[in-house]
Amino acid sequence: MNREQLVRNIRRKQSFLCVGLDTDLKKIPAHLLQEEDPIFAFNRAIIDATAPYCVAYKPNLAFYECYGLKGWEAFDKTVRYIKENHPDQFIIADAKRGDIGNTSAMYARSFFEEMNIDSLTVAPYMGEDSVTPFLQYEDKWVILLALTSNKGSHDFQLVEDKDGQRLFEKVLLTSQQWAGPDKMMYVVGATQGRLFEDIRRIAPHHFLLVPGVGAQGGSLEEVCHYGMTGDCGLLVNSSRGIIYADNSENFAGTAAAKAQELQQQMARLLAKKTAE
Amino acid sequence: MNREQLVRNIRRKQSFLCVGLDTDLKKIPAHLLQEEDPIFAFNRAIIDATAPYCVAYKPNLAFYECYGLKGWEAFDKTVRYIKENHPDQFIIADAKRGDIGNTSAMYARSFFEEMNIDSLTVAPYMGEDSVTPFLQYEDKWVILLALTSNKGSHDFQLVEDKDGQRLFEKVLLTSQQWAGPDKMMYVVGATQGRLFEDIRRIAPHHFLLVPGVGAQGGSLEEVCHYGMTGDCGLLVNSSRGIIYADNSENFAGTAAAKAQELQQQMARLLAKKTAE
Repeated sequence: MNREQLVRNIRRKQSFLCVGLDTDLKKIPAHLLQEEDPIFAFNRAIIDATAPYCVAYKPNLAFYECYGLKGWEAFDKTVRYIKENHPDQFIIADAKRGDIGNTSAMYARSFFEEMNIDSLTVAPYMGEDSVTPFLQYEDKWVILLALTSNKGSHDFQLVEDKDGQRLFEKVLLTSQQWAGPDKMMYVVGATQGRLFEDIRRIAPHHFLLVPGVGAQGGSLEEVCHYGMTGDCGLLVNSSRGIIYADNSENFAGTAAAKAQELQQQMARLLAKKTAE
Repeated sequence: MNREQLVRNIRRKQSFLCVGLDTDLKKIPAHLLQEEDPIFAFNRAIIDATAPYCVAYKPNLAFYECYGLKGWEAFDKTVRYIKENHPDQFIIADAKRGDIGNTSAMYARSFFEEMNIDSLTVAPYMGEDSVTPFLQYEDKWVILLALTSNKGSHDFQLVEDKDGQRLFEKVLLTSQQWAGPDKMMYVVGATQGRLFEDIRRIAPHHFLLVPGVGAQGGSLEEVCHYGMTGDCGLLVNSSRGIIYADNSENFAGTAAAKAQELQQQMARLLAKKTAE
């Protein structure tokens, strides 16, 4: 999916919501455990219920890998299900990969060619040649970790160099030499508050993938106040707050209601931005 | 496997060689492609041939993931084969993971509990809470990326903070508050030459996992000169130089010869260190 298509979907749906599919067998409704593939059964129900209110899905690979072959099968089926039934959804494989060039190339082949996923989260620590193999595919995206939502983000990402530039700023600046806002997004945690201002100074046009609203404590209003651009420029992720809002048999209905709630807030925030 | 066992294996075999199982269907001998599981057939032959000369195996997950379910099956069979038939080998899942706490915990469960792998490579960018979930398992190891072997390592890892401390040094120092040399190793590329001196000043006792000898151009002598400690403290990885040395039907024999060559060099370097 290219940038124009993504922006069009956001405008049409009045939503920049990404639903995180962090599917955990320990948390899904008990009645699904009798299904042949409980993870996929859960995902399918969540996807069909929330699709009207979101523009992207983000399965986190860890939650699938930890079930071995069965987990990968569920991941693969989930991606194919979205592609076939909800082709306007942007798919983010939250994998946080990044390795030496020939290895990153293998990952790129896997996610972009074999699975036809739209984008992949990548860790920047290993630098340019670990990222560029992912940039060789048309209409496929790298979403580079810049400033993450967790407490540990302070350990290294905020370290200042001798000119006062923080590591996440260096990552934003350096990586813009590798690709523009049509192929690269950045992960910025919703918990980072006013640091969004600093991010927007360096990366005024890039889409930001924003986890950390909801369970992790970030504020949607604050993120939009400091981070939203003229064509939105945000994909805000919610996982636990939507998919685990209810673990009764009505889980999908509740997930839809929670997604709709966020979508309505987002519609208001988009309107406010347009009115500015 | 604990540190004492690892050091004992190194002394007994006079080797600190780790064989990288970066198995690529495009590079393995053609006759194996008729096997039901060519990746596993290749690995099994390489493992049986090289096991006398090495102390560790490092399958790189990217090379398995890119074949989807079949790849994961081959990975799983490879790990089980090593555990059953060569239980003295240290297994490193080269996965370069690292995510927010609850996700890292899922990865830890997957690699350490389900698969009983000895160690996992982890990227430090997201800081403490992305690493500590891997440290909760007895005799299991985190191998943290510090200074990698690729060109891109210069982009961020060598950035100096206002006190002149480089990022890889900060990673070494900060992470030592999370675990000691009995649970943590560091990845340091063989191509980094004299920087090993700086590493040893900060981490005098930690084992270093050293990729980049061979195809990537690093020198074994130099690595040992600057990096070897009293109980060796090194696991030097070779992948392509061993496993793809020959793609005839005699590939395993040639791999054994290449591994033995390295082992003999290593025996001399260990003896030299002892004589110092």
